[in-house]
Amino acid sequence: MKNGLFISIEGPDGSGKSTQIEVLRKYFEKQGIDVLLTREPGGTPISEKIREIILDKNNMEMDDMTEALLYAASRAQHVAEVIKPALAAGKIVICDRFIDSSIAYQGYGRELGDCVRVINEYAVRGCIPDMTFLMKMDPKVGKERISESEQDRLEQEKLDFHRRVFDGYIEMEERFDRIIGIDAERSIDEISADIISHIERIIGENGRI
Amino acid sequence: MKNGLFISIEGPDGSGKSTQIEVLRKYFEKQGIDVLLTREPGGTPISEKIREIILDKNNMEMDDMTEALLYAASRAQHVAEVIKPALAAGKIVICDRFIDSSIAYQGYGRELGDCVRVINEYAVRGCIPDMTFLMKMDPKVGKERISESEQDRLEQEKLDFHRRVFDGYIEMEERFDRIIGIDAERSIDEISADIISHIERIIGENGRI
Repeated sequence: MKNGLFISIEGPDGSGKSTQIEVLRKYFEKQGIDVLLTREPGGTPISEKIREIILDKNNMEMDDMTEALLYAASRAQHVAEVIKPALAAGKIVICDRFIDSSIAYQGYGRELGDCVRVINEYAVRGCIPDMTFLMKMDPKVGKERISESEQDRLEQEKLDFHRRVFDGYIEMEERFDRIIGIDAERSIDEISADIISHIERIIGENGRI
Repeated sequence: MKNGLFISIEGPDGSGKSTQIEVLRKYFEKQGIDVLLTREPGGTPISEKIREIILDKNNMEMDDMTEALLYAASRAQHVAEVIKPALAAGKIVICDRFIDSSIAYQGYGRELGDCVRVINEYAVRGCIPDMTFLMKMDPKVGKERISESEQDRLEQEKLDFHRRVFDGYIEMEERFDRIIGIDAERSIDEISADIISHIERIIGENGRI
């Protein structure tokens, strides 16, 4: 059974997810609370091997459905081996990208549709974040923050793809109560204060941790 | 659009699938018909990389759902890159294991249930065999034919797993008209004659090839 708290951070590359995750880690650790930081795709040796296949620039002939299923496979392993045990041990798990990334990037971006949600709900077997912070930043701004040489196969996709992804995220924010939109075009401190105030409100409402 | 003919061969390891596939290849080639032989998991460079992860004995901690999703990912790539183009070119495609292997091994054997069928139907996007020959052989007999040293991770599973797989195959034979059960405990020639008579009957009925 789940006892901890599961937080995921979503949004375009370059929207400041890593910075905010680090702020959150310090916030919880100052209170003496055990935090597990993890990321997708990856998080376990098997997931890392899958990640290598997904992000290998030599695999340009990869079918979109193959890609979506590989992300789901990596996630299933990540949940079974890392996230569920940590939550069962009462930890706070902060995950850099989770199920919503697949729905946004494969479902909306690659236009595979709702099957991506169905497949990933099977993959996580009920392990859904308690709260998800969506870093909202115009995709054009996020893309400009990352230099061309650092960009992997996914990051090289055209801007219209990133626009569909972003629009997908916005639709999901409207659909799922757990997804909280955060204006990510502000200063780091303003964003952190915003996220932490949401966490304190939700923990206060639910009496958890 | 599909113009060729898609045949899959299913059944326990050691049930003589490879032998019969070779007989079928010769049967069609004698008539001047182009045949593509392929196998699962594998069939493309990306699928082979996925196959390596699945069958690696070091990956004993692999979650059952991860395994099922990896098989589906490998299959999606195999369909997109190999099977669909061959069928579109009017070829006969003979595939050693396909969607029914996943349903039997992961759905029934690993007891993941019907989600395996759903996931794989997404993976193949409508590319379902025209006919499937199920080599029916008591799992105990098939297992004894393969030496211990040759057995990979899946093959090392206990006999009760193989019993569930076999029972799953039998249920699927009853459910899907395209699946034709073949008594595989007979001589090679008797089995071949049986399979070819089914193929000739079905081609005659449908006027294809």
